[in-house]
Amino acid sequence: MSSSFEEKTIKSEKIFSGKIISLQVDDVELPNGKYSKRELIKHPGAVAVIAITNDGKIVMVEQYRKALERDVVEIPAGKLEKGEEPSLCAKRELEEETGYVCESLDWLISFYTSPGFADELVHLYVARGLEKKEDAAPPDEDEFVTLVELTLEEALEYIEERKIYDAKTAYAVQYLQLQEALKK
Amino acid sequence: MSSSFEEKTIKSEKIFSGKIISLQVDDVELPNGKYSKRELIKHPGAVAVIAITNDGKIVMVEQYRKALERDVVEIPAGKLEKGEEPSLCAKRELEEETGYVCESLDWLISFYTSPGFADELVHLYVARGLEKKEDAAPPDEDEFVTLVELTLEEALEYIEERKIYDAKTAYAVQYLQLQEALKK
Repeated sequence: MSSSFEEKTIKSEKIFSGKIISLQVDDVELPNGKYSKRELIKHPGAVAVIAITNDGKIVMVEQYRKALERDVVEIPAGKLEKGEEPSLCAKRELEEETGYVCESLDWLISFYTSPGFADELVHLYVARGLEKKEDAAPPDEDEFVTLVELTLEEALEYIEERKIYDAKTAYAVQYLQLQEALKK
Repeated sequence: MSSSFEEKTIKSEKIFSGKIISLQVDDVELPNGKYSKRELIKHPGAVAVIAITNDGKIVMVEQYRKALERDVVEIPAGKLEKGEEPSLCAKRELEEETGYVCESLDWLISFYTSPGFADELVHLYVARGLEKKEDAAPPDEDEFVTLVELTLEEALEYIEERKIYDAKTAYAVQYLQLQEALKK
């Protein structure tokens, strides 16, 4: 796609480089010749998995999110390791966070979560044919999660009660709603 | 909801405070007594509008996103001004970015875009009964947008071609798909 409104970078200042994100502030020239500043977060990207059990439930994990200072219920997800292939990352996160391995894993969509200030791209997969693995890989050592399996109705209640409260999980629940509607 | 895995803040260091986002790094005590660092972005929150024209098209804007270094097609959206009521912000952004005013505006869902590192909360609204306003309020002076109105089929093609490439817009398109499926 042509870029009619490209913003030319005049200067780029690195502010912070962390374990997960980095921050830079760019001075840009706007299409009208004026100038502005853009605060930009760089992120390695992530995967998320809509895992459907054989009885049609959607697999979620409950975890504490420091950014929100509260527990939230989300579909399994995690950030890409350097050079990691997204589908392998999806299988790894599913196993680590839920103990499930899957027969089929299909890419559904990839989306930027916050294009206004961040380049985080989330690759969303649908996993089916789930089976519990006895000796599943454990989560990261700073990760504490509880498994939650919800019917569509329960997931919609969780949204209502704001226990489910993030974009990728809301997308996942709506995806399940759509699949149910298409069946009828 | 009880918080079984709460992470206790030991120290919080402010790194950056900008026009839109700020960044802090917290030292936290984990549930197992170990320590970790959390890189956290604070954001004022935002609104986004699924605006449906009287002939069933979805209203989008094309704009350059410096964070992604490319043009993207998104539903109208914008960040909350200090103390601004989200529904008023939604009407303001819709008018500024598209020139449309709406007869009805209904809250649909609110979600965090990136709970792993940011507290950005997006309030999503559905606007119907659209009417072009002759003397519509103009966009912000550092904002350049082109109006795009898409049928559901076109929106799905845009996703396929990665012209639509962000979470809130993907959610909006899936919402339209669901509404169509429920009609049948």
